[in-house]
This record gives sequence, C-alpha cells and structure tokens, in this order.
Amino acid sequence: MTTGNINVSVENIFPLIKKFLYSDHEIFLRELISNATDATLKLKHLTNIGEAPGVEYGNPVIEVKVDKEGKKLHIIDHGIGMTADEVQKYINEVAFSGAEEFLEKYKDSAKDSGIIGHFGLGFYSAFMVANTVEIITKSYKDEPASHWSCDGSPKYSLEQADKKERGTEIILHINKDSEEFLDDAKITQLLTKYNKFMPIPIKFGTKEETKTTGQGDNAKEEKITVDNIINNPDPAWTKQPADLKEEDYKNFYRELYPMQFEEPLFHIHLNVDYPFNLTGILYFPKLSNDMSMQKDRIQLYQNQVFVTDNVEGIVPEFLTMLKGVIDSPDIPLNVSRSYLQADGNVKKISSYITRKVADKLKSIFNENREDFEKKWNDIKIVIEYGMLSEDKFFEKADKFALYPTVDGTYYTFEELQEKIKDGQTDKDNKLVILYASDKDAQHTYINEAKERGYEVLLLDSPIVSHLLQKLETSKENISFARVDADSIDNLIKKDDEKISKLSEEEKETLKTTLDEVIPKEKFTVQLEALDSNASPFTITQPEFMRRMKEMSATGGGMFGMGNMPEMYNLVVNTNHELVNQIVNTKTKAKQERLIKQSLDLARLSQGLLKGEELTNFVKRSYEMIK
Amino acid sequence: MTTGNINVSVENIFPLIKKFLYSDHEIFLRELISNATDATLKLKHLTNIGEAPGVEYGNPVIEVKVDKEGKKLHIIDHGIGMTADEVQKYINEVAFSGAEEFLEKYKDSAKDSGIIGHFGLGFYSAFMVANTVEIITKSYKDEPASHWSCDGSPKYSLEQADKKERGTEIILHINKDSEEFLDDAKITQLLTKYNKFMPIPIKFGTKEETKTTGQGDNAKEEKITVDNIINNPDPAWTKQPADLKEEDYKNFYRELYPMQFEEPLFHIHLNVDYPFNLTGILYFPKLSNDMSMQKDRIQLYQNQVFVTDNVEGIVPEFLTMLKGVIDSPDIPLNVSRSYLQADGNVKKISSYITRKVADKLKSIFNENREDFEKKWNDIKIVIEYGMLSEDKFFEKADKFALYPTVDGTYYTFEELQEKIKDGQTDKDNKLVILYASDKDAQHTYINEAKERGYEVLLLDSPIVSHLLQKLETSKENISFARVDADSIDNLIKKDDEKISKLSEEEKETLKTTLDEVIPKEKFTVQLEALDSNASPFTITQPEFMRRMKEMSATGGGMFGMGNMPEMYNLVVNTNHELVNQIVNTKTKAKQERLIKQSLDLARLSQGLLKGEELTNFVKRSYEMIK
Repeated sequence: MTTGNINVSVENIFPLIKKFLYSDHEIFLRELISNATDATLKLKHLTNIGEAPGVEYGNPVIEVKVDKEGKKLHIIDHGIGMTADEVQKYINEVAFSGAEEFLEKYKDSAKDSGIIGHFGLGFYSAFMVANTVEIITKSYKDEPASHWSCDGSPKYSLEQADKKERGTEIILHINKDSEEFLDDAKITQLLTKYNKFMPIPIKFGTKEETKTTGQGDNAKEEKITVDNIINNPDPAWTKQPADLKEEDYKNFYRELYPMQFEEPLFHIHLNVDYPFNLTGILYFPKLSNDMSMQKDRIQLYQNQVFVTDNVEGIVPEFLTMLKGVIDSPDIPLNVSRSYLQADGNVKKISSYITRKVADKLKSIFNENREDFEKKWNDIKIVIEYGMLSEDKFFEKADKFALYPTVDGTYYTFEELQEKIKDGQTDKDNKLVILYASDKDAQHTYINEAKERGYEVLLLDSPIVSHLLQKLETSKENISFARVDADSIDNLIKKDDEKISKLSEEEKETLKTTLDEVIPKEKFTVQLEALDSNASPFTITQPEFMRRMKEMSATGGGMFGMGNMPEMYNLVVNTNHELVNQIVNTKTKAKQERLIKQSLDLARLSQGLLKGEELTNFVKRSYEMIK
Repeated sequence: MTTGNINVSVENIFPLIKKFLYSDHEIFLRELISNATDATLKLKHLTNIGEAPGVEYGNPVIEVKVDKEGKKLHIIDHGIGMTADEVQKYINEVAFSGAEEFLEKYKDSAKDSGIIGHFGLGFYSAFMVANTVEIITKSYKDEPASHWSCDGSPKYSLEQADKKERGTEIILHINKDSEEFLDDAKITQLLTKYNKFMPIPIKFGTKEETKTTGQGDNAKEEKITVDNIINNPDPAWTKQPADLKEEDYKNFYRELYPMQFEEPLFHIHLNVDYPFNLTGILYFPKLSNDMSMQKDRIQLYQNQVFVTDNVEGIVPEFLTMLKGVIDSPDIPLNVSRSYLQADGNVKKISSYITRKVADKLKSIFNENREDFEKKWNDIKIVIEYGMLSEDKFFEKADKFALYPTVDGTYYTFEELQEKIKDGQTDKDNKLVILYASDKDAQHTYINEAKERGYEVLLLDSPIVSHLLQKLETSKENISFARVDADSIDNLIKKDDEKISKLSEEEKETLKTTLDEVIPKEKFTVQLEALDSNASPFTITQPEFMRRMKEMSATGGGMFGMGNMPEMYNLVVNTNHELVNQIVNTKTKAKQERLIKQSLDLARLSQGLLKGEELTNFVKRSYEMIK
C-alpha cells in the first residue's frame, strides 16, 4: 500500500480560480473594496488597542480611479499595508486568508471589528477582468514598500518600491473583454450596488457643490469641488433603535429605494447577537393585491457588503413582500437554496424574523388601533398569507388580524363573534359569517343581508378563500358564506316557518311555466317563500363550488375544480307581487316576456347580462321609456 | 527583484473545492454518473476504432446502489477503468482532466463520442456529501485492479485490489448531514432530474413487470423481476428529424412533461453544428394570457446531462414561454447571466433559435393556413411579444401574424389593409382599423360599427396596446381605434355633412338641460347629429388616454399615465326621437327622469353602472314591468 498527499496542480487550478470561482465577473470590485476595507479596519483596530505605536489612523478613504487611456483601474487604501514577507505569504499562497488569521490572533478584541474577508480568494477575482495585476504596498511597520506583479500565469515578480504612503494600491490592467469596467457610469453603478453602506468612505472622482460664505448682505454662493463619496459608512441598521427617530428610518428608506416615492407604513428594527448575529430594518410598504409583483426587494448584506436581493429561503416566504435590509455574517451563501432551508442557523433566523414581525404588528395593534385599522388594507395580504403558511404566525395573528365590514368597521375575529353571535347563529347552532368580495358587484345581495340586520364583511384579497377554509377548520361551529351564495334566509336558517302566498297547485304551475322559459343548463330554479319585499328573482351561486374554484385559481383546492363550469341557482320569491302576476297571466307571450325581463334584471344584479343580450335589453328599455 | 510561482496550498484549497465548488450539493450524483458514462463511452470508442483488441464492449449498464445500513452509496460502471498509474495521475492530481486529455489524443475520431467531462473536478464533488470516498477500479488493459481511499483530508491510500470485472466502483461513505442521499426516493428523484436522457443505461434497483407466456387459452400472466432502468439513452432530440414521426415528438413531450395532459400545438426540431453545436426540440404549448406563469419550462442539457431549466439569456425572452429541450456543449454555464448575454456564441444561438421559430411559423402558415388560424389564439402571445421585442422577428412575423375579426375571419395585416381600404379610409386619407378587446363588453359598439359595414378586429392579448403603438409607427397612414373610442362616425370621418334635426336654439337648450343633470366630473357631453336609428346616448372613452393607461399597466407607456383618472364622453344623438322628446318635455321632473334613465342605459352598455346605482336601476325596472 502506498499513501500520499493529493496534489493540487497550480497550472490546472489557477485558470479555474480566475474564471469560474465567481459566477459573476462584476463582483471583483466588491472583493477588492472589501479587502481595502479590511486593511483599513485592521489598522483601526491595532491603533485602538495600542498595537501600532506612533501610527496615526486619521480619516482614511478608499479611492477608486479609472485610467481610460491606460486601460487601468486603481483601488487605493490607506490601511495596514503589507511587508514583502506578507505579500509572499498572503498573495503568493492562494487560499491563505489573512483575515482569518488576523481574527484568530486578535480573537477577543476583534470580534466586532467588522472585518469581512474569509477565504482569501477574493483578490484573485481581479484576474477575471484583468490580464495583469499589480500591487504596490507599504506596511504601517517601518519597512520598505513592495511592488508585486503577475500577468495571469502562475508566475509573479516581486521587487522593492518607493511608495512612501502607508497602504495598498491595486492596479488592474483591464482585459479586452472587460472594458466596460473602464466606464465611469459602470463603476458608479457597481459601487452603488455593492458598496453603498460599507464602513470606510469610498471616493470615486469629484463633484461640485454650492457653498455659502459670509452672512446677510455679504452672503455669497460659491461653487467648490469636493470628493465624491459613494457610500454612507454608518447606515441606520448598524445603529441602536434608541438612537434613531422615526424620521431617520424614513430617510434610510429613501436612501435604500431612491426611486420609490411612497413612504413605508412602518418599520421593524432587527437586532440580535445570540444564537446568531443579525441586524436589519424591515419596512412594510403599501402592498397591492398582486402578490407576484412584490418580491426580491429585501437586500441581504454581510458586514455591510451587499450580497443579493434574493432572500428566498432566508426570510419566510410571506415576508419576502416586505422591503428593507438584513445583515448577517452567519448566513452561508455559497450553498444551494435547498441546503439553506435545512441549515439550523438559517431556520432560527427565519423564525426570529417571523416572531419580530408578529410582535411588532401586535404592538401597533395594541398601542394604536386606529392607525392599525387605517393600514390594514395595505398590509393584510402579508398577514393573511403568513396565517396560511406558518402556524406559529397564525396563532399570534389570530389576535390582531382584522375583518372589516362593508361599512368600514374593523373587528378582530373574537370581537366579530361576540357582535354577531345572537343574530347570526342558525338553528343548528352554527355561527354563519357573511361576506362580500366586491361591494359594487354584490350590492343587491349586501343590501338584503343588511335589511335583516346582519353584518357583512368585505374580504377581497386574492387568497381569502384559502384563509376562510383554514378558519373554518381551526375554529369550531362557524362557517363563512358569501352573500350571494343563496337567498339570505337560506344562508342563515332560523326555525320560523315560511308561509307561501301561492298554493301548492299554483307553485306547480309556476314551476312548469318557468322551466319552459329558463334555460335549464344555466340555472336551477328554486322556489322560496320569501319576504314580499325581497327581490322577485335572485341568482345565487353555491358557496362550496365557487370557493373551490377560487382556491384552485390561486393554487390549491381540489384537483380539477378549476375547470368545473359555473353553477347558478335562480331563486324565485313566491311571495312577490310580480311572481303572482306571472302565475296569473293568461297569455303565454306576455307571461314569457315578464319572466324574461325579470330574469334579465336578476342577471344584471349578478353581473351576468352581457354582450348581445345586454344590447337587446338596453334597446328594449329605450323603447319602454320613449 | 525575485520571481516565483504562485503556490496553491492544498490544505487550504481542498476544503474549498469540497464544499464550495458547486453551490448545489445534490449535483455530486450527476458528476459521478457523468464520469461513469464517460468511462463507458471511452471504452466504446476504443473498441470501435480497434484500439482495444480482445475487449468485448457488450451492453454495459451503470448501476447505482444504496446501502442504508452501511450508510454507503455505490456507483458502478463497466467502462474503461483505471490502472494504478492512471489513478495516481487523474485522481491524486486535482484538476487534471482525463476527459480533456482523451479528447485531445483522439481529436479526430472522438469528436462525436459524447464525452462530457471537462475540468476533472467533478469527482471531488463526492466529498460534499461523503466523509470517505473509495475507488475500486480495474482497467480494460491486462493490469491488476486498484483500491484508492481518502478520508477527506488531502491524504490518500492506494493498494492492489482483487476486483476481476472491468470498470470502476465508487463508494461514498455518506456523512451525517447528507443522509437524505441514502433515501431511495431521493436518489430516484435526482437520477430522473439530471440523468433521464444520458446515453448509457442507468440501473437503480429492480421492478416487477407482467409478462405473458403461451398463447390463446394457454396464455398465462407471470410477474417477473427486471432491472429498473432510469433513463432513455436515445432521446428524440439526438435523432434526425427524418427518422421521427409526429407521434414520436408527442411521445417525447409526454416523457419530458409527464404531469402535462395537454398536447403541444407543434414542435420545432433544432439541429446545427456550425458555427456552434446545438440540438433540441421546442414545443409550442397552449398559452394563456397570463405571461408570468409560463416561464422556465425549457430544459437545458449539455451532452444529454440536465443542467438547468433557467434558459434566461440563452433563449430570447419571448421564447421562454415555450417548452422543450436544448442541448449544446457550447453554452458557457459557469458564468453570470449578464456575461452570457454578451457572449458571441450565445448571441448566435439566440438568433438561430429566433430564426428557426420564425421559419417554422411561416411554413405552417404557408402550408396549412386553416390549422395556423385554429392555433392562433393559443400562440399569439409569443408572436406578439416577439414582434415587440425583436425587430428581426417583427419583419418575418409581419407576413404571418394574424388579425382576427369579431366574426372569426383571420387576416394578415396586408390582407386586412386590402379588404378595408375602400370603406375605412377617412377624409384625411388615413386607414382607420377598428378593434374591440371584448366581444361581450363592447357588443353595442361593435354592432354600430358592423351596421356601417366596417370590419372590427378582436384583439385581446394583454400586450396588444404596445403592438398597436408599434404598428402605427412602423407602417404609414394607419391608425387603430377601439370601437368605443368615439361615436362611430367620428372614428372614421367622411366628408358628408351631417344634418341635425334640432335647431341651433334647441341644441342650446338641450345642452343646458343635460349639463344640469349629467355629472360634469364624470362625463363630457358631446352633441352629435347621428343616424336617427343610432343609440340616443352613448358613452365613449378616447383612444389615446385609454391606450396609454393600458400600456402603463403592462409596463411602458408614458410616465404617470397609469394614475390618471378614467375619462369618458357622453355622446348624445340629436337626431334620435328620445332626445327630441327630452327637449320638448315641459316638466322638469319628467325631463330629468328621462335623462337619468337614458344615462343609466348608456352606462350599462359601457359596463359603468354598478353597486347601489345598479341596485336602484333594477328595482325601478321591476316596478316598471309590474
């Protein structure tokens, strides 16, 4: 038996590292700025703990410069720098992370220093866009500067340089395929995308500002040229909630979404160190009913470096409709999304966020009910979706989820139950909750219910049928019915006997007459002895089928239900004068005209009279008023 | 100055390769099956060209076995195998791809051998899910077998083994975090996802089949156990179109989408070797008008290995609504999507696919116009979207894109122009093309246009307003108008003078009366001397504003237009008897009732009478017929 070490052949692996380590070439700039930031933060840490005697930390800035003619990109920092030995160790040995070693060495003190680097491969991403890369670096220690250069083969050269200033300058000789990175607009875009909230100021070019000098009559406006600083090194989420005012949160929202004109409804500040590290601010924006439009707006950072705006798997799905930032070094990002969801830390993060959101909603509900009601319609989709998808959230939200009536009163479920239990409990002791999905389209039916003194909820979000299904199974002895699901007296059946003005014989005749005129394949005729003031003809749509169809349209319900035809009943009020008249009309033609016109009017109320039939109805009606 | 070689430190890079090379752990199985397939194909190639004398290729199968108790996964092939020297070279030296070397050596003959491997890193992906990996391998050459083992540190052991059969067995000792890969269902799922169409049969377990023996009365059904072969090694797209029947394409569609019950409308077989290599079959499924639901259904393969179902950037966006497969070794996949789009080969692939799709559509249009018309409504969304987004496609599609009328006649643009140029050219020599978006909702208006002998198109796809805008700017002297954009005589203005039955004075009185009753903020009153049979009151909605609002709803149009209020005109026909009656009615109350009822009827025709107003209208109408 032989044993040995697996050998990683540099000639073979170097091209791979250069080309394929990162799937997105543009991140080279993020990596180099992260290195420059680390170099600066390391120096800050050393001066803080007194390990860099005689060194003045000052106000270091990282500078990015484009040299279009020379086809070069420069990244310059005033950080810790490297000695020739350190270049040898950190640059010439791939995958020896200086950051990791530093954090190990200064374990106790450096924990909160914000240092980003981890695997030490970031520097090599420069070769994705550059043929030749140079490093000119001078350590904060009293040693000569070094000049390293590599043309992309594994060969490098290293010599002494005469750089006097402390820090590191990286020079990229941009290759032919990557000349887009010599464009000012492109660099600005990348810096804004990835580095907008990094902790060390980043300068890219200059800009003009107007400065006012003197006072009163002597005041003068002057144009001055100042450094163009790309980033805000102290973004709101890195601060303590106690140090921030409402206005600060709103300003930060505008900073995050400069193209967004609407203000957020409220925010949630996330801040936890144990068992994982996570900070962030989530905002509830106004949400429309179109759920698919509103994803991927939460930005994910690691130590203030932008990573992605796809938080799928990290944030529970129902919260991906929110906006804002999450910053956590503890989220493993080089793994697949399916692996992410199985990761213990990520699970904890996800349930922490869910809990914080529920708590915040609860506290607004408790402290400012009026405000909560005002915002309800803009946030309900998130809450309802959360109630459907996360049982823990359901339990909490059940206390503050609101059920508005068509008249604009907002009840919690408990309040609603209390309010309607006397009037809307049917003879089988079931509480029937009436609702409408559209105040306009179901106006006639809402009216009938209100005339009985019933409350009618207005439930119009696209997933509400799923929620009703869940409520019916998780609570006892309740059921929901849309106001047009049956005649109102059938929806909430009481014990009282109904007396029909028509005799059994007359009913029989009426039934035969109606069946001759009403198309059977569209309507099932149902004779009911209703109040004589109730509508003579009413078209209803049974709750169960309609709800199943709705559920299958938004994903769910029973298989195949979506393709079932619409089913309608025609409720004929045997106590209405017009119906009496139909029974007693002797001429067939007149009888038929009465039935048809009544049916058309009933269809109008249910939004079913359309096309040619509507045109004919309108024409007929113009004739009638002439 | 010193020079040297950058050193890749194995201790540091090995963990990275193991954990982070692939973002998705599950692909380890795809990689190992690809290696086994290559090993088999290499042997096939050598026996074909006579370089493996005395070796029988046979019918080799790759076998996957799960050992739940031992927590091991075995992948066994009967391919080329490795000698101890080859293990040393290909396994112990990371990133030395045997496949690349093989292809280089047998350049001329091996081009079409289907060998997959490229970078030689695939094997190491095993360490993402296994602590220890063993290889037991015997070369087709007359040399002893070897047994290699590595516990995940860079240390390996290698000794002689007594394996007698040719080929390689890989044994993975699955680690604690990855035990899901010891589950039969999971392995079946992965094999089905990634390896369903790979060229060497893959066996995973056995299954029972019913076999009939004997004949007639002696026929007996018998259960027999057979190998469970996961894949179809000869998928349709690898064959020549001439060798496939219509039925074969349909069968392959069902193989690709077993859960899909609807048949595809037609297919396009892609097949090109130069300047890039690409095969595939695209299917046009029935498409609904909801564009967002229908993406990510084309599967991308490389040499019959599944890679992804996200073809964004490879296939032009408007074609991502299609289904099917694309197989090309020439698509660089380890790069970012934005980089992909800039890649020359990918651009060529994308325009090749566009051209093939356009040609296929053209040929169906030419060869079977009737069939093309039948399919139009199911495919129009792709064609219209293509016409909007790709100018080259627009040029081709302009010849076969169809414009159906409300009566079901399908015209090309040229045919339409020819058909209507006499009747629908207005006094300024502009051809006015009338259309409706909904036959039911705009029935009254369609009727009025048809009474004039005009053709009315039915254009109902969600992006049609964008297409009309494009047609109006790319063709001369035409404009589109929806039938309800104005009174029909104003939409196509002819020279003939209109005579009003009302005197100027009467018109003045009418105007004043109407202004008192009609709410100004909702309707702009417009008196017109129309045909006396035309509707007395008509509500119209100007074309420009409505179209801009529609465009901004689907992304586009002018900024801010989406938020403008709806604008309606009320066209009053001064030649209608009812209007005359309004003018001459003396009692204010009766006049007002006439106007209100007429307005309600006009609103009904435009779908604007809703809610309480509709309820009241219906009640009033029941009273009237009683």
